[in-house]
Amino acid sequence: MTDRPLIRLNPGQERRLKAGHPWAFSNEIRMSPDYRAMEKGLPVRLESAEGWRLGTFMFNAHSLIAARLLDRDPAAVIDAAWVRKRLDDAIALRARLGLGTFHRLVHAEADRLPGLIVDRYGDVAVIQANTAGMDRLLPDITAGLVDALGLRAVVARNDSGARAQEGLAPDVSLLHGIDAAVLVEEGGVRFPIDPMSGQKTGWFFDQRPNRDRVAALARGAKVLDVFCHVGAFGLRCAAAGAAEVTLVDSSAPALTHAMEGAALNGFASRVSTRRGDAFDVMGDLAAEGAKFDIVVVDPPAFAKSKKDHDAGLRAYGRMARLAAPLVAPGGFLFAASCSHHAPLLEFAAVIAEGITRARREGRILLTGGAGPDHPVHPLLPESAYLKGQLIQLI
Amino acid sequence: MTDRPLIRLNPGQERRLKAGHPWAFSNEIRMSPDYRAMEKGLPVRLESAEGWRLGTFMFNAHSLIAARLLDRDPAAVIDAAWVRKRLDDAIALRARLGLGTFHRLVHAEADRLPGLIVDRYGDVAVIQANTAGMDRLLPDITAGLVDALGLRAVVARNDSGARAQEGLAPDVSLLHGIDAAVLVEEGGVRFPIDPMSGQKTGWFFDQRPNRDRVAALARGAKVLDVFCHVGAFGLRCAAAGAAEVTLVDSSAPALTHAMEGAALNGFASRVSTRRGDAFDVMGDLAAEGAKFDIVVVDPPAFAKSKKDHDAGLRAYGRMARLAAPLVAPGGFLFAASCSHHAPLLEFAAVIAEGITRARREGRILLTGGAGPDHPVHPLLPESAYLKGQLIQLI
Repeated sequence: MTDRPLIRLNPGQERRLKAGHPWAFSNEIRMSPDYRAMEKGLPVRLESAEGWRLGTFMFNAHSLIAARLLDRDPAAVIDAAWVRKRLDDAIALRARLGLGTFHRLVHAEADRLPGLIVDRYGDVAVIQANTAGMDRLLPDITAGLVDALGLRAVVARNDSGARAQEGLAPDVSLLHGIDAAVLVEEGGVRFPIDPMSGQKTGWFFDQRPNRDRVAALARGAKVLDVFCHVGAFGLRCAAAGAAEVTLVDSSAPALTHAMEGAALNGFASRVSTRRGDAFDVMGDLAAEGAKFDIVVVDPPAFAKSKKDHDAGLRAYGRMARLAAPLVAPGGFLFAASCSHHAPLLEFAAVIAEGITRARREGRILLTGGAGPDHPVHPLLPESAYLKGQLIQLI
Repeated sequence: MTDRPLIRLNPGQERRLKAGHPWAFSNEIRMSPDYRAMEKGLPVRLESAEGWRLGTFMFNAHSLIAARLLDRDPAAVIDAAWVRKRLDDAIALRARLGLGTFHRLVHAEADRLPGLIVDRYGDVAVIQANTAGMDRLLPDITAGLVDALGLRAVVARNDSGARAQEGLAPDVSLLHGIDAAVLVEEGGVRFPIDPMSGQKTGWFFDQRPNRDRVAALARGAKVLDVFCHVGAFGLRCAAAGAAEVTLVDSSAPALTHAMEGAALNGFASRVSTRRGDAFDVMGDLAAEGAKFDIVVVDPPAFAKSKKDHDAGLRAYGRMARLAAPLVAPGGFLFAASCSHHAPLLEFAAVIAEGITRARREGRILLTGGAGPDHPVHPLLPESAYLKGQLIQLI
């Protein structure tokens, strides 16, 4: 490793990194022509201007996050064995947590594989390599996963916006196996997904604990699942014995996919769909006087960037104001946000305001995020993007 | 109700209340001699200076929180039937949540009984009436609970600091029945408590979901429970199959009580105690090279008031720095705070800093508060005082 390139921080920029933060930003490093010419994602030694050794990082001069921590040891060998150790560690944690075989298996920095996402669907894994460093390691990652878990297929779903920021080309392909189609199993629901298809898979593991909580209230209930996508909340409620489930989404293919799932599980007769803009449909349902025992509103991110912050929060508030009148007295509202740029306290405040504007009172039963298969790096608390509140309305 | 006293807010003070907030503060009301002379806790009509009707409140001119919302209806009759309806509503919610018979049954404002706490221990209820308004209603509350739940005993544990702020005398007494001693049952542990005794009962329901999470990791583990009080975390781990549990507290009676509980459950041979200042004991254990698979640090509030904010946060950081070295590689740290004045983000930051200072890395698996038997009023988010993080250390 003596030939490993050395990258130096600008003077005075080491403090955050010495405190354990795993990133150096591009404006903290003077980008010499040498640095700029380096292969994207190569392991480097990172040091402060004064020579303090910060460890082995992967380096991309062309990314806003220029260096990401791989190993505190500046001489760590980043090879197949190193990758395998990190994967085994991630696998052991999910096993220890009793999470079965359907879960997020690698959650980026918190699992010490910066920018790498791996979702496990039984004997199929779906990988997103959102950094140049992980992109370089894809062959080792794939081989390690197949060997450790005996996988039938591994899919690269490398079409995220994050990759573009790293200067990486999109790529959706089969890295191992010949067929990646699979049935997700969760809480008594089996659901068909094809990780290779144009649509996102649609079964987001981050909401699993919240689906557990909502489904636990669903026996005999009339349920409305707004922004349902492929209906994960609604189908979980149906499996838990809901009397009626209404799925609302603007996407016809998503609703079709949801109904295929309902049929597969034998409860299509209790599930119906309503296609349209979620805000419009909620208004229409209120005008019809419809009431539900459980209303789920789990929209796509309304605040995708900092500049969307104010408009996004207003949209969450409007969502709560439209959803609250649809909840029967004593019923439950589950409201979620997956926006990085809608902090929990502000999200909770606009939800409370929306409920009040609908002239309803409530009590918050749970405020929760993703489950433990989405661990959070202690120094990247902002990566805990998902927040949801379960509220009983009186 | 035409003879119900009318209280007027000062001009311009109605905005927060019109937005659903359940309190008016004493500086928002000009306290005339009439107001001051009113019986503490009496139901009143509250109106804005311009005559906007805000509802029925209970009024105490001598408390910082002078008026607390009882009912949006300004003519609501606050009698035994009204109390019973609120109790039935609280009971129905806990039943719907599948919470058995051991839980917090009434959680103050969120259950629309301002300042009233009721903990249910099977056929015994323990009441704290922390406001003058609820103190006046104690006979109706007691009768309602006994009738609805067929209780054997009801205890008033009216010795909180909050009562003093309302100008109420302390009172610990049996309101119903002849013997309140009871066995708590939780997660396979039975634990004897006497709600009438000088000690606090020591079985705090707020940590139950966190005990569930920690106990789920405990099979075969070596567990350290610091600030253990009567050992609820440690005994739950023992019941879940922990190999060894070490309980640390400065109180000899608490440790004695904990060991009685261990003996009752038949796992005294796997439980030991270490009496002393928690910080000192953690330092001693580190010096001895002791390592544990699970370390729980659940201290009393370090930031009891605003002026304790900085010192309290430093204490949480120091606690994490001393606890982290005791966690075996791959083991788990559960760190909690019950301080109102240690906000979650700041608490999480000092815990992360303490772990880094101990030269350890970790991933946060769960950030959670109290369970749904401790609901939160949407406009009193600060009442969600409990926060805890489960962190795997590498």
